[in-house]
Amino acid sequence: MKHFTFHQISGLLLIFFVSYCAPKQDYDSLESVVVEETALTSWNDGPSKQKIIQFVEKTTDSSSPDFVPESKRIAVFDNDGTLWAENPVYFQLFYAIDFIKKHSPGHPEWSANPTLKAILEDDLQTALEGGEKALAEIVMVSHAGMTEDQFTSSVRDWIKTSKHPQTGKAFNQMIYYPMVELMEYLRESGYKTFIVSGGGIDFIRAWAEETYGIPPYQVVGSSLKAEYTEVDGKNQIVKLPELNFYDDKAGKPVGIHQHIGERPIMAFGNSDGDYEMLEYTTQSPGPRLGVYIHHTDSIREYAYDRNSLVGQLVRGLDNAESNGWLLVDMAKDWKIVYPNP
Amino acid sequence: MKHFTFHQISGLLLIFFVSYCAPKQDYDSLESVVVEETALTSWNDGPSKQKIIQFVEKTTDSSSPDFVPESKRIAVFDNDGTLWAENPVYFQLFYAIDFIKKHSPGHPEWSANPTLKAILEDDLQTALEGGEKALAEIVMVSHAGMTEDQFTSSVRDWIKTSKHPQTGKAFNQMIYYPMVELMEYLRESGYKTFIVSGGGIDFIRAWAEETYGIPPYQVVGSSLKAEYTEVDGKNQIVKLPELNFYDDKAGKPVGIHQHIGERPIMAFGNSDGDYEMLEYTTQSPGPRLGVYIHHTDSIREYAYDRNSLVGQLVRGLDNAESNGWLLVDMAKDWKIVYPNP
Repeated sequence: MKHFTFHQISGLLLIFFVSYCAPKQDYDSLESVVVEETALTSWNDGPSKQKIIQFVEKTTDSSSPDFVPESKRIAVFDNDGTLWAENPVYFQLFYAIDFIKKHSPGHPEWSANPTLKAILEDDLQTALEGGEKALAEIVMVSHAGMTEDQFTSSVRDWIKTSKHPQTGKAFNQMIYYPMVELMEYLRESGYKTFIVSGGGIDFIRAWAEETYGIPPYQVVGSSLKAEYTEVDGKNQIVKLPELNFYDDKAGKPVGIHQHIGERPIMAFGNSDGDYEMLEYTTQSPGPRLGVYIHHTDSIREYAYDRNSLVGQLVRGLDNAESNGWLLVDMAKDWKIVYPNP
Repeated sequence: MKHFTFHQISGLLLIFFVSYCAPKQDYDSLESVVVEETALTSWNDGPSKQKIIQFVEKTTDSSSPDFVPESKRIAVFDNDGTLWAENPVYFQLFYAIDFIKKHSPGHPEWSANPTLKAILEDDLQTALEGGEKALAEIVMVSHAGMTEDQFTSSVRDWIKTSKHPQTGKAFNQMIYYPMVELMEYLRESGYKTFIVSGGGIDFIRAWAEETYGIPPYQVVGSSLKAEYTEVDGKNQIVKLPELNFYDDKAGKPVGIHQHIGERPIMAFGNSDGDYEMLEYTTQSPGPRLGVYIHHTDSIREYAYDRNSLVGQLVRGLDNAESNGWLLVDMAKDWKIVYPNP
């Protein structure tokens, strides 16, 4: 389990407890959204919007030398920080903590475990002091041992009832509307949209179709091993407490290979964990587009890159230009951030 | 590697060397194909065709109590023996043998390996005497160490140029036309069609789109581990000589869970290796259909079940009726077998 971390955990705590100002929404910028009728109405006109639309137009125009047949129009999207927010910690960790609290009455043995006991006492600092081992315990207790149906129900219940501690929004309302609109635009243009996330594949599948229009079989992510076994007189899939695949960094191209089996032609990420995915996507002949979403908006969302403990972006910032990758500036390029500001 | 076998290898040899009569084609039955205009024209009228069409109609009729929304219309198909032939041995083994012969001039070291040496001398009996270890060597030498692009090219070249030793047909002409027609009918009815095979995922992906209309991301199969690494100055996926996943028997529901993330509502297989897939598909509320293709046609294809060394069907035959699964009788139910008899 040594790889199954949420990056530099030791510092997450700091972010978690420092009291952020709840992001303020910029209502002024909303007015023009309804007026325009072209593609990507939630994007401001400018080089980013232009580059994306030009790419889609040239790859879908059968008279263009850059035309790509529909079956090869594969676009991949990181999730945390690319399709929805990831501050103050990855939202999946909130799910895990809430799960442990909710189910603790049936598990008196959890209070003998220092990590779980600390979570039950709202002492995340102590809980995470155990580092990767502690985080693995948290993930396994809240993700393994369930049937696939139980886990899916558990995540769906959580996403319906839980609120983000800073914005008070439901977590699936902290998705980026311009990215949802972009994915719809791509699908209307004959693209297949896939999520390729370091987060848990089944966690994302539980709500991705309703939220993003992406079906379960177009989600790639980190996974636990699973077994087919009889539970309550019925043969079911049960999630095991053992890592199957860690879909981050160089794992992303491998996950794409194993699940999609085709090199994408567009890739969208926001952190160094997406670097290899953008590299794999763009390092091949033919039209290719790599895009980094740069978190520059401290007012409407969060501003972070090099020194962040979630979604750290160093190598990506240093090499985006020389690699020909587009850097989307959230503050400048997006008219709105969330669907309901 | 102990699981990576082609079932009861010790006996494959027998089948391989016993001289089968090349299957004779029944041209008489072809005439009526063109006349009918309903669905599944290559299927004879009868209970099998009726049951499949009724299932599709009730699940796609929005006024039916058994209506299934499009996003849940998932149909899974085994490959060897369900979509194409599997006699005298799984066709992937022919690919492996041909690969070893073709590339032996660049690998003088292979002749020091008894298994590979025997293959180079056309002595499959000796080659397979090493059992699972020998088979693993054959598979690894012919599948691992290549980039994904090299492997795909290699399989595509092979399928374009190789012929089946008994029929003289290209291997991708030994697909079952009634199944190809069925998959098209399902897709036209809003179903997604997936292959779920014990065979190699990348081997199938190389030709499945052209042959069956199934894109690479809708193929689930056995796989080797892979890594993302630099080859010839470019970052690429390289297949490693280590088993990643064995997609057979209880592995099939697990493979479906990990790749598709959704319990199918239709499943098609032909051997006991598909039993758990049919069970997983049909053991849940709502409309469900499990189908076994029963190889009953010694004239146009092959007749085998309980005592066969490929595609053995014992448990499936014993329990199909009590499980409510349809047994398709190839000889009676199909007007034609291959697309070009």
